[in-house]
Amino acid sequence: MISSEQALELILNSTQDFGVEEIPFLNSVGRVLRENIVADRDFPPFNRVAMDGIAIDFKSFKKGQTAYTVEGVQPAGSPQETLQNTENCFEVMTGAVLPKNTNTVIRYEDLKIENGVANILIEDINESQNIHQQGSDKKEGVVLIPENTIISVAEIGVLATVGKVTVKVAKQPKVMILTTGDELVNVEQQPLAHQIRKSNVFTLVSLLERIKIPAEIAHITDDKSTLKQKVKQYLQDFDVLLCSGAVSKGKFDYLPEVFNELGVKKLFHRIAQRPGKPFWFGETDYCKVFAFPGNPVSTFVNCLLYFYAWFYKSNQVEILQETAILTEDVVFKPNLAYFLQVKLSDKFGHVLATPVKANGSGDLASLVQADAFIQLPKTTDTVFKQGYNFPIFRYR
Amino acid sequence: MISSEQALELILNSTQDFGVEEIPFLNSVGRVLRENIVADRDFPPFNRVAMDGIAIDFKSFKKGQTAYTVEGVQPAGSPQETLQNTENCFEVMTGAVLPKNTNTVIRYEDLKIENGVANILIEDINESQNIHQQGSDKKEGVVLIPENTIISVAEIGVLATVGKVTVKVAKQPKVMILTTGDELVNVEQQPLAHQIRKSNVFTLVSLLERIKIPAEIAHITDDKSTLKQKVKQYLQDFDVLLCSGAVSKGKFDYLPEVFNELGVKKLFHRIAQRPGKPFWFGETDYCKVFAFPGNPVSTFVNCLLYFYAWFYKSNQVEILQETAILTEDVVFKPNLAYFLQVKLSDKFGHVLATPVKANGSGDLASLVQADAFIQLPKTTDTVFKQGYNFPIFRYR
Repeated sequence: MISSEQALELILNSTQDFGVEEIPFLNSVGRVLRENIVADRDFPPFNRVAMDGIAIDFKSFKKGQTAYTVEGVQPAGSPQETLQNTENCFEVMTGAVLPKNTNTVIRYEDLKIENGVANILIEDINESQNIHQQGSDKKEGVVLIPENTIISVAEIGVLATVGKVTVKVAKQPKVMILTTGDELVNVEQQPLAHQIRKSNVFTLVSLLERIKIPAEIAHITDDKSTLKQKVKQYLQDFDVLLCSGAVSKGKFDYLPEVFNELGVKKLFHRIAQRPGKPFWFGETDYCKVFAFPGNPVSTFVNCLLYFYAWFYKSNQVEILQETAILTEDVVFKPNLAYFLQVKLSDKFGHVLATPVKANGSGDLASLVQADAFIQLPKTTDTVFKQGYNFPIFRYR
Repeated sequence: MISSEQALELILNSTQDFGVEEIPFLNSVGRVLRENIVADRDFPPFNRVAMDGIAIDFKSFKKGQTAYTVEGVQPAGSPQETLQNTENCFEVMTGAVLPKNTNTVIRYEDLKIENGVANILIEDINESQNIHQQGSDKKEGVVLIPENTIISVAEIGVLATVGKVTVKVAKQPKVMILTTGDELVNVEQQPLAHQIRKSNVFTLVSLLERIKIPAEIAHITDDKSTLKQKVKQYLQDFDVLLCSGAVSKGKFDYLPEVFNELGVKKLFHRIAQRPGKPFWFGETDYCKVFAFPGNPVSTFVNCLLYFYAWFYKSNQVEILQETAILTEDVVFKPNLAYFLQVKLSDKFGHVLATPVKANGSGDLASLVQADAFIQLPKTTDTVFKQGYNFPIFRYR
C-alpha cells in the first residue's frame, strides 16, 4: 500500500499528450489552448475615442479658446475624418477613430452645444484626455493568451477580436467508463430488495463532462471471461479506461487478475487513504487504466483527485491548489490520508471548511450536502485542529 | 445616477419565474432543481455488507468460537441467503445483502480460510461491524436534495439512485442578445483601419452558457428606425433582451429613446460605478431589458454582476458571496463604485486578490490576465488598503 503522495507521483509520471484539434472558437470554453493567441493589430488598432463629445486640437484650448465651431461628426465605424481648421472641432462618438488634426476629447457632459458651436464649460482639461491610444493595451504581435490556458468566458472575446474563427486545443483522450456489480439495475428499473440502481457511471460521466471529456459507457456482469473479453477490446479502442468496482478483495473482484492476464502493467494497487483505498492504476503502451473501488464516495473522490490531476498534467495545465480552514476539530484515528466532505463558506477573505457528517464511503447522499473534499494528511496525530488549513478539492 | 446597491435592488425586485420543464437527469448539471428529491427507499435499502469477508452471528464469537465452516457465498446482486447453522458463516461481498441470521462482518484481511473453514485471526471484533445498516444514511421519504439546488456532479448520482430518469428544473428565459455598433465586423472578416471585429456578443453568449442559458443573437446597424422595428419584435418574442452598446451619450446611441418610444418602463439609466456606468435597465409586462454599455469590460462586468444576480434570484437560488483580500493598495479617486480585475491566489485558506493593470473599460485583453472582479465601494476615501477584504465575482 503506497501513500497518496506516491500514488499521485506515479500517476503524474504517466501522463500523455493526445495531440491537437481545431474547433470553432465559440465551443472552446473549458478546453486547453494549444497555440499562442497573438494580437493581429495594435489594441486598440487606432487612436480610439473613449467618450462621446468633441475632439479638438489641444493647442487652441491652451491659448484660451473655449468656443468651437462643429466641422462635422465622426461616428464609430466610419473612415477617419480630418479637422480642416484646427480652431474648429469634430463631434466624435465612443469607438470612433480620432479625426486627424485632433488630439483631445471633451465629453458632452462638459459642453454646451448651440447653433453649431460647442462651448467648453470646464477649465480642467488635459491634452490627450479621453483617448484610448493606439496600441496602449497591447502592441501588434504580442501574445494575448498563452498556450496551455484553459479557455474561459474572458478568452472568448479576445479570440473573436483577433479573428480566430477556429482555435487549436488539446484533443481529449478517448475514455471508456466501465462499471461492474451484479446488484446494479438501470435508472428506469424498479430494483428488487437486494438490488440498487446504477449511479457511479453517471457520476463519472458528469465529472468528465465537467472537464469537457465525452465518454462512452459500459456495464459488465461479474463474470470473469466476459469481463476479460470486453476489457481486452477496450484496451485497444480507448486511451483511458475508467473503472468502478471489482478491484477489492471480493470473490468477484476480477479486474486486477484480468488486467494482469491482459498484460496491463500495474503501477499500484491500494493507497493509504480513506475513502478510495483499493484504487488500482496501471497502463499498457496505449491505454491508461484507472480502476476505482465501487463505493460511490470512493469513485467520486478518486476521479476528482487523481484522474483530474492526470488530465491537467497531461495537458500541461497548472491548477491552483486551493486550501481552506477547518471550522471544527476532526478526529480520525486510522493511519491513512483522510478525504473528508466539507461545506465551504466565506468570511473576510477566508475559505472555511465545515465537515459534513457522513456515513462512510457508501453514503452517496452526503456528497449533496458538501462542496468539496478536504485532504487531511496521513499522520499519527489523530486530531486535526480547528483553525488549521488543508488542501481542498471543490466539485461545485 | 443611482448607486450600485440601488441598481441591484431594482433589478432584484424585477425578477420573474419562467416555469418548470422536465429534462433527462444526465443533462441537468448546472440547472436549478424545481422539485424535492426524496429517498424512494431507505439508504441503503438493506443491511449492506461493507467489506469483503465473512458474516457471522456475533453471539458465537462472543462465546469464544474462532473457526467457522463456510456455508455459502452471498454475492452482491443476489437475493438474501440464510445462514442455517449460526455456528457457521457465509462469505459475503461488498454491496451484498447481509445474510439472515448474521449480524457481523469480518474482512478477509483478518481471516485465514482453509478447507472450507474460516479462522478469525484477531480478537478485537465488535458486534455489527462492517455493516452499512439499512436506512443509516437516509430513511425512505427523507428529502435528499431540496428544491432550488443548482444541480452539480454530486447530485447526479443521487438522482440516478432514486430512479429520476427525468427531473423537473427551472425553465430558462428566452434571451435575445442584441449588439449595435457600425464599427463592428464579423470574426471571419478582415477589418478596415477604422473597424474592429465583434466580440461582446460572443462574450455574452459564453457568460449565458456558463449558467446554461441558450441565447439567440442579432447585430443591428446604428439606424434608429431599423433598431426600433427590431426591438419591437424582440420585446414580443423574448423574455429578456440583453443589449450591448448604444446606451451612452453618443449621437447614435438610440436605444434609450427607442425603449421609451416602445413603452419600455425605464427603471434606471446610469450607475455610479466604473466600468459600466451607462447601463440602462427597464421592463415591459413580458420582457426585461438589460442594456449594457458597449465597452467590452463594461458589458462583461455588468452581465456578470447584475444579470447573474437577477437570474439566480429569479430561480430562488442563494449564491454564496465570496470575498478576497487585497494584496496591494489601490488608489481610485472618482466617487464611484470600482470593479477592478484581479488575479486570485491562495495562501493558508485565504483568497488573495492582486489587481491586474488594465487600461480602462476598452481593455478586453486585461480580462485574460484576471480571474475575477473585486468590488471596491463608492467612498470619499481614495485608498483601498492592502489586507482589507472586499466582495469578488469570479468568472473562471
